[in-house]
Amino acid sequence: MKFNRRTHTCGELREENIGEKVILNGWVDNRRDLGGVIFVDLRDRYGITQIVFEPHYNVESHKEGSALRSEFVVAVEGTVRKRPDNTENLSIPTGLIDVMVDKIIILNEAKTPPFPIQKSENVNEDIRLEYRYLDLRSEKMQKNLIMRSKMYNTVRNYFNDNGFLEIETPYLMKSTPEGARDFLVPSRIHRGKFYALPQSPQTYKQLLMVSGFDKYFQIVKCFRDEDLRADRQPEFTQIDIEMSFVDQEDIFQMVEGLMVKLYKETKNSEIETPIRRMDFHEAMEKYGSDKPDLRFNLEMKTLNHVFENSEFRVFKDAIESKGIISGLVAEGCGDYTRNQLDVITNFVKQLGAGGLIWMRVTEDGLDAPVAKFMTDDEKQGIIDNLGAKPGDLLFIISGPKMKSLSIMGFLRLEMAKRLNLIKPDTKPSLLWVTNFPLLEWDEDTKRFYAMHHPFTSPNLDEVDKLETDPGSVNARAYDLVLNGNEIAGGSIRIHNSELQSRMFDALGVSKEEAETKFGFLMNAFKYGAPPHGGIAFGFDRLAMLFAGEDSIRDVIAFPKTSSASSLMDDSPSFVDEEQLKELFIKIR
Amino acid sequence: MKFNRRTHTCGELREENIGEKVILNGWVDNRRDLGGVIFVDLRDRYGITQIVFEPHYNVESHKEGSALRSEFVVAVEGTVRKRPDNTENLSIPTGLIDVMVDKIIILNEAKTPPFPIQKSENVNEDIRLEYRYLDLRSEKMQKNLIMRSKMYNTVRNYFNDNGFLEIETPYLMKSTPEGARDFLVPSRIHRGKFYALPQSPQTYKQLLMVSGFDKYFQIVKCFRDEDLRADRQPEFTQIDIEMSFVDQEDIFQMVEGLMVKLYKETKNSEIETPIRRMDFHEAMEKYGSDKPDLRFNLEMKTLNHVFENSEFRVFKDAIESKGIISGLVAEGCGDYTRNQLDVITNFVKQLGAGGLIWMRVTEDGLDAPVAKFMTDDEKQGIIDNLGAKPGDLLFIISGPKMKSLSIMGFLRLEMAKRLNLIKPDTKPSLLWVTNFPLLEWDEDTKRFYAMHHPFTSPNLDEVDKLETDPGSVNARAYDLVLNGNEIAGGSIRIHNSELQSRMFDALGVSKEEAETKFGFLMNAFKYGAPPHGGIAFGFDRLAMLFAGEDSIRDVIAFPKTSSASSLMDDSPSFVDEEQLKELFIKIR
Repeated sequence: MKFNRRTHTCGELREENIGEKVILNGWVDNRRDLGGVIFVDLRDRYGITQIVFEPHYNVESHKEGSALRSEFVVAVEGTVRKRPDNTENLSIPTGLIDVMVDKIIILNEAKTPPFPIQKSENVNEDIRLEYRYLDLRSEKMQKNLIMRSKMYNTVRNYFNDNGFLEIETPYLMKSTPEGARDFLVPSRIHRGKFYALPQSPQTYKQLLMVSGFDKYFQIVKCFRDEDLRADRQPEFTQIDIEMSFVDQEDIFQMVEGLMVKLYKETKNSEIETPIRRMDFHEAMEKYGSDKPDLRFNLEMKTLNHVFENSEFRVFKDAIESKGIISGLVAEGCGDYTRNQLDVITNFVKQLGAGGLIWMRVTEDGLDAPVAKFMTDDEKQGIIDNLGAKPGDLLFIISGPKMKSLSIMGFLRLEMAKRLNLIKPDTKPSLLWVTNFPLLEWDEDTKRFYAMHHPFTSPNLDEVDKLETDPGSVNARAYDLVLNGNEIAGGSIRIHNSELQSRMFDALGVSKEEAETKFGFLMNAFKYGAPPHGGIAFGFDRLAMLFAGEDSIRDVIAFPKTSSASSLMDDSPSFVDEEQLKELFIKIR
Repeated sequence: MKFNRRTHTCGELREENIGEKVILNGWVDNRRDLGGVIFVDLRDRYGITQIVFEPHYNVESHKEGSALRSEFVVAVEGTVRKRPDNTENLSIPTGLIDVMVDKIIILNEAKTPPFPIQKSENVNEDIRLEYRYLDLRSEKMQKNLIMRSKMYNTVRNYFNDNGFLEIETPYLMKSTPEGARDFLVPSRIHRGKFYALPQSPQTYKQLLMVSGFDKYFQIVKCFRDEDLRADRQPEFTQIDIEMSFVDQEDIFQMVEGLMVKLYKETKNSEIETPIRRMDFHEAMEKYGSDKPDLRFNLEMKTLNHVFENSEFRVFKDAIESKGIISGLVAEGCGDYTRNQLDVITNFVKQLGAGGLIWMRVTEDGLDAPVAKFMTDDEKQGIIDNLGAKPGDLLFIISGPKMKSLSIMGFLRLEMAKRLNLIKPDTKPSLLWVTNFPLLEWDEDTKRFYAMHHPFTSPNLDEVDKLETDPGSVNARAYDLVLNGNEIAGGSIRIHNSELQSRMFDALGVSKEEAETKFGFLMNAFKYGAPPHGGIAFGFDRLAMLFAGEDSIRDVIAFPKTSSASSLMDDSPSFVDEEQLKELFIKIR
């Protein structure tokens, strides 16, 4: 089909174009027939321009205009006109003009879309995903993907300006499942062998440091074959960063510069630096989370010292078993009904809590079923330590330390929601959480796992405890948290093959297994590895937060469902037996 | 290990720093002990600085300096000194100064590398690939990957500046093998189903046009499970571009702007635009290739009209079977020996030629075994048409048209090499080849294949022949050629579901198969698809040509061998039976 190409986009014409002959290409956003005059909003990525078919102006084109339907693709030639008085539309930049159509060519017709494109909020998401190419026409999805594209460019220019090299790492790599499941790719050339898709380019970026590239970054797809949660996809995008001859302060500064630039260029807003830092252990105790949301305060308090001599069995047990007693004030919630309190009790029980202690603060002191188990000093101690006042509601959770803190952390978030502590204009809260435990004990398999990953360096003054008390060793690891979401995580790495061996020992990875899986990395460390460290951002989540969306699917062009399917092209799908034969595999 | 971080890189110090206390971090490039004074070239990505250990200056550090070996990683503190007269090294930017070492910390020792890092040209490539992290330390690989990183940035900024959106397309997609083999990824959630890794994001980028994103680009990994040739990798990088409401001139202009910028920013050189355009049929007839190298002329001539009435059986047959008689002059090669001519004859026979006719041009005319089969008019016709003169050598190949032209094209390249027609300062030659045939007939399977891909639009005035004479239809397809290498290929696409159906019919793809594989795309076309087209660059090859290398492995950080293995991490590899069970597959 031959057609005249646009002279302007649909977002471009202004008053100064009045009188000009123009050509526009675009989609019919909607068509209104007002007493013989036809008005069409012509849409493209850049905006909307009203085009007008008037029988007295051009009888031919008016006739063709009547054939137009929503989502038809057209090329129009016409003359820019000042809109008649009182018909201006000040809500769009082209709203002072319209285009009187001389000639129109229909470039493509369109069936009626299965859902209204601009009003799809209430459409079943499965339908939107099946017709993703239509859903992507919506103003929301256009805005989100345009913003995401801008973020790529900001990120890349920032790292380029700071002397980083963008280096591509392989997608077909070795399977080394340690943590999540690998996606596997059968080899056609090597019978019975498989590649894995990268869960992260971790080993490669460390090797690039061994190679002396000094500063590396990449925006790269990573893959994890895990059961999906709302904000997970089988493939996800990472901003991957690694630097040599640095400690964690260097990484912090580099990342903070990026965040300043992203806020400035994407949202035209300023953030304060340096970003606050908080020790993991403090974060857990005060906020019950390794990714605390500090847009509001609502701080938890440890009350163990108040109950040092308590005879109340619950608290006595907690203290004797080195557990914790943690308290939280819900300001002004003293009037919660028994029913409301049951709902909240249920909430923490579902998270695994043995129970929830609540107390109303009145002018006369504490009013609660458990009050009778406490001495007056203890009651006063609670009030003093929590800074509670009449009309408040208090919560106490006790038990094993990390578990109890974590549950109280969820209760903290729940109460913030109920108390409406996050307002639309609340400032974003960025936070570095540092000094994570190096290892995590897993009760099921009775072994330690790396909390970050097995290449993370222990704190240098704690290395000696790696064999004697591995659970107490902390790591040179750090997370960047935005509004209670982990948006990036990283560490200073081990760069010494001997320390790396000790780390594998602590993880219960045998010499043989370490050699088979990571021999090349440990070998590389023997040829002059520099001290190095890095960080990786979850880019989808970052884009989601910047876009103000609740689902990462709203910032991904072609996402998968929670069962890892694409409803649009119906993948995964069955393949020809011939393809499987060539790969030496069959279905079991 | 605690250490002082660098104040400067190893490429940074100049005369104006003399007298300053500095800290450098880097690798020992080499160490020379000259009568008690130890000189070390300290290396990082940014350059080399000479550091000096002198016993009279600092006895302690001198002692430690003696322990240094090649590739040790160190942090040195010292004072910048003007080098003594006549010891300057003008070949490096830091060559006027050196650093007298006050203190040195060895950050990591290094085993002796398995090959000399800076002189690895003669090292077996398998060894270089096994120790890729060391090979990447070489000046050559550093230079190549730094240049490649610069190219990414140039490309991205160019497209951003021109209003393109960078949008990520999925890596886990539907298997639609049409052309090359897919890499498959078994699904753990959907028993017996598979994803495929993208051979290109073709369908997605077309859908993004249907969605109205108007201008899309992406630098993206693609995958083809084919047997590898020297310049192929199982995973390769593509600069992927698509635009709406365009014809091929718009694509050409956009790409030419990119090439100007790449030459300017990467090589600081200018290229002329517009880039020359040549019809596919002309390229074949004159240069025997759809990617002619025009750095030299050496033009082939079609001689059919000279032999219209020839009784010489070979030519008679060629003309009667609608074949071709193609001639080429090798200037001044009239003195080639019989042995040399045998070698060349063998060369074309191995390419599938029935034979090679050669003739020496002498003052008396043509001197050749076949001369006796030709009339004097024919002989004169050859000389005139080829513009030959005494002392030249002539070649004639005849037979089926495309095959003969192609063989002559290879002979043309071979003779250019022998005649040394490409000099180091020869200007690069860029060329658009246009108007490719839409379809290619395959004798083995007795069907047509899409020469570009099945989404390429036929020429609009040839659409009618799609059913009656499909082999004669040309396409709105184009390749960009650099020095005889195809560096990019693209087309204006079909944007109409009815025409797309006719194209699948011409390809012998059944309605059912088209529906199963590409139904979502054809369906999308029914909801208002704009006219659109695009192009994709092979980025590895482009980087290789810019770097002046002969192998794409020299511009890829971690390449695979020709058997698609990584010698460094030994992938692909066997995986646990447990992993296969979860994926419902077993080895056959």
